[in-house]
Amino acid sequence: MSDTKQAGSMPGPEITLSSETKFQGKIISLQVHEVQLPSGATSTREIIRHPGAAAVIAIVDGKLLTVGQYRKPMDKYQVEIPAGKLDAGEDPAVCAARELKEETGITAASVRLVDAFYTSPGFADEKVYLYVAEGLEQGESQPDEDEELHVEALTMEQAEDYIERGLIGDAKTLMAVYLWKLSKHTGQIGLRG
Amino acid sequence: MSDTKQAGSMPGPEITLSSETKFQGKIISLQVHEVQLPSGATSTREIIRHPGAAAVIAIVDGKLLTVGQYRKPMDKYQVEIPAGKLDAGEDPAVCAARELKEETGITAASVRLVDAFYTSPGFADEKVYLYVAEGLEQGESQPDEDEELHVEALTMEQAEDYIERGLIGDAKTLMAVYLWKLSKHTGQIGLRG
Repeated sequence: MSDTKQAGSMPGPEITLSSETKFQGKIISLQVHEVQLPSGATSTREIIRHPGAAAVIAIVDGKLLTVGQYRKPMDKYQVEIPAGKLDAGEDPAVCAARELKEETGITAASVRLVDAFYTSPGFADEKVYLYVAEGLEQGESQPDEDEELHVEALTMEQAEDYIERGLIGDAKTLMAVYLWKLSKHTGQIGLRG
Repeated sequence: MSDTKQAGSMPGPEITLSSETKFQGKIISLQVHEVQLPSGATSTREIIRHPGAAAVIAIVDGKLLTVGQYRKPMDKYQVEIPAGKLDAGEDPAVCAARELKEETGITAASVRLVDAFYTSPGFADEKVYLYVAEGLEQGESQPDEDEELHVEALTMEQAEDYIERGLIGDAKTLMAVYLWKLSKHTGQIGLRG
């Protein structure tokens, strides 16, 4: 394609001139930054700080493990892969294995990182580390006190049906289904597969 | 897999007992809800309200159109597919075509919805509508005043290299690359392909 006037130059940093924390919660905090753009102009940025999260693709007997829960932000029941936010200083791999165990009762011999992504780069720093769990063994689930979960193992056809019905509809779970589907052609879950 | 004690029952709604808007910004707002869980226990939920966004997969001469920009929440330059937030009441398809035109100068004869996803179901209601643009024609870009963009068309190999180097690392763009890669096996971009 032809160049635009910006092409060829990576936009430089936005410098924080001043910032204010407007909210400090249990899980997220919110800051407003006054920034100077590379052009010299100024603008404001509304920024959510989040500790990050780990999520797990776990395939048991050819089925994807999911947990259903009520999601208050959308006021809607959603089916998602097991996931949870990182504790302070926690290794995302440890978090992934921990959440899998707590939410589904499954123990993984190991987890392999396949992906990490920012959920909303425009306004949040949240990063989700996506793992594949390997060497799975059944145990007992131990959900958090304020989590009410419904564990289900889905075939690919069920997962696609859930997507069409809006039961599955979040970034990490759609990614998991895409990577799982891709693995049917390439032989392994992961981009290089 | 075997049942857990939750299996078989979809967790019911969390009822808002009271809520407070803690921040009202230009793009996002933040509420804290005191909720009653189906068990009868109470908890709080920190919720970001966001108008939603549209994003576009545009393939020109076998290359994926991207825009690079500085992302203040991560203080990092990121390469993403064209996207932008919905104006009040705006049809996401109209938004997708508008953002593609503004950011890259490319006009699409039509856009086709392939996906829609919640970015962070735990704390935000943001939904991103992901389109494939078809019938593309070159024009002139018109980025927003406070956007400084770097337009690039990437081969699959370049996109994968950008992912490995952390230049591509957000949910919508990784999804676009996965769907694009899947389409090499299935013949079309979209889950049913």
